[in-house]
Amino acid sequence: MSGDAFAGKRVLVTGGLGFIGSNLAIALVERGARVVVVDALIPVHGGNRFNLEPVKDAVEVHVEDLRDADLVRERVRGCDFVFHLAGQVSHGDSMRDPQLDQAVNVGATINLVEACRYECPEARLVYTSTRQVYGIPRRLPVDETHPTDPIDVNGINKLAAEYYHLLYDRTYALRSCVLRLTNTYGPRQQIRNDRQSFMGIMIRQALLGETLQVFGTGEQLRDFNYVGDVVEALLRAGATEACMGRVFNLGAPRHYSLLEFVEHLNRECPLEYRLVPFPDDRRIIDIGDYYGDYSAFREATGWEPAVDLAEGLHETLESFRAHPEVYWK
Amino acid sequence: MSGDAFAGKRVLVTGGLGFIGSNLAIALVERGARVVVVDALIPVHGGNRFNLEPVKDAVEVHVEDLRDADLVRERVRGCDFVFHLAGQVSHGDSMRDPQLDQAVNVGATINLVEACRYECPEARLVYTSTRQVYGIPRRLPVDETHPTDPIDVNGINKLAAEYYHLLYDRTYALRSCVLRLTNTYGPRQQIRNDRQSFMGIMIRQALLGETLQVFGTGEQLRDFNYVGDVVEALLRAGATEACMGRVFNLGAPRHYSLLEFVEHLNRECPLEYRLVPFPDDRRIIDIGDYYGDYSAFREATGWEPAVDLAEGLHETLESFRAHPEVYWK
Repeated sequence: MSGDAFAGKRVLVTGGLGFIGSNLAIALVERGARVVVVDALIPVHGGNRFNLEPVKDAVEVHVEDLRDADLVRERVRGCDFVFHLAGQVSHGDSMRDPQLDQAVNVGATINLVEACRYECPEARLVYTSTRQVYGIPRRLPVDETHPTDPIDVNGINKLAAEYYHLLYDRTYALRSCVLRLTNTYGPRQQIRNDRQSFMGIMIRQALLGETLQVFGTGEQLRDFNYVGDVVEALLRAGATEACMGRVFNLGAPRHYSLLEFVEHLNRECPLEYRLVPFPDDRRIIDIGDYYGDYSAFREATGWEPAVDLAEGLHETLESFRAHPEVYWK
Repeated sequence: MSGDAFAGKRVLVTGGLGFIGSNLAIALVERGARVVVVDALIPVHGGNRFNLEPVKDAVEVHVEDLRDADLVRERVRGCDFVFHLAGQVSHGDSMRDPQLDQAVNVGATINLVEACRYECPEARLVYTSTRQVYGIPRRLPVDETHPTDPIDVNGINKLAAEYYHLLYDRTYALRSCVLRLTNTYGPRQQIRNDRQSFMGIMIRQALLGETLQVFGTGEQLRDFNYVGDVVEALLRAGATEACMGRVFNLGAPRHYSLLEFVEHLNRECPLEYRLVPFPDDRRIIDIGDYYGDYSAFREATGWEPAVDLAEGLHETLESFRAHPEVYWK
């Protein structure tokens, strides 16, 4: 549907060696885009050159840091679309090193929107934010009118980065759209360390035959998006003029408890688990139950998740089993 | 009322050579506090050594930049209270140099709360934010439940800095309170350049006998606080346990149009004015009408502005006329 929008276009994907960024870059190549990737490959953040293996000859890759404003100006020059996915995504890390999280998520974003303002004012920007900006839900499902009240450093900085995109859209006509992602999983996710969501941790533990640790009662509710659906959402956001200047949730038609997720995972990869109390550093930033309302985005773009949890986990496990040394062994 | 809370206490005022900071530092000395001031004296930001002339022998002054995390840790050590007023306050400047605004308002604030977390975990923090975080009011008066939707870089960064204070209060029990100030005016305001509110600009123009320029129709509504009332609010916030972890508006019982403000100024200093269209760089960040609801803060602390616009302008003009070379000539 959104394919034609990108054919022959110059498209920058920041964080394009990372989990979602690499899946997006591959999809863009398939749609005929001229894809440029910038990724700082900050150790442990999730970037991995192997992620772009299927399209390595078709993508221009720059290992560069968006904290360098001059480099950013060079990279965005002539771009028709900019998908801004680079960033620090670990909530725990953001609490341990708030200055780094701020530099990578806020500082780099200021550099990016400023660069686009001058170097590619006609481009469209899509920013991947997070449901973490809402903090602890006051009502469920959470829609975009829910107050933003982040309870960790990463949520604060992602929210500031959102505001930058919206400000530059409003003020300088630099068209920007923000998507608030919920739990995304799938091939190419960094699951080697514990920094990218509990799903990645559990998938690795299951693959390694380790006992899974489920924090709290395991009854916390969450919604999940398969990465292929998130990529489709990003493409539709970029291709849809009516999305510009707006913020949208992603989400899924069903939500699950953590234990239900573990059950689904168990079907793909027999496992053992036990309930453990929250460690202190997790408890203080836990948001309780969450699931989002994505009807606004569905109305704007027609997007609907196509892959349910069972199918998504099947694809995911198959992919990780095919590359144990790269991703988890 | 809040005087006893500070007697003998070590109190840090960041931005203490600036407009509100210096007035606060003087009030704290009068209440028996041991006052430490940190101010970077960044050119044109508003700091001025003369501001502390009345208490210069009673205050420890460090000309240092809060962007240096190690220095901040040294300064907050042993403090009982930290009033965080340092920052960049010009909306226009924040649009022209967003990186600087971010470093000074967000970067420095992360350094400060991190430093307090380790060096003075028992201290109380009071942060001076701005009504600019609301953006264009969707209803009037604006209370604290109004959505935050900043329309300039400064508003985004001040909001992020607010969230940092609230996060550290919630997460690490570092008690913090945020006050959202509206238009503050009075002695020691920087009025030499156009960076600190239209009131300062107009007061200088009136003193110099220049024709005032009023943007737009002049019918935009605003509320005003005399700096003495703001200082009293800051002291009460710091002295009131029930304020910790919360955000409050300041405000005034009356609001005025810009032309009414000009009329009041005219009584103190006969002047001429003319209406001019908004310059482009002002128009894009103008918020239209604004006046705030400060009843939550009144209920928490009993605070009520004591000085109305006529009296406040009289005091202000008298003060500026006493020191023309320092402030405006």
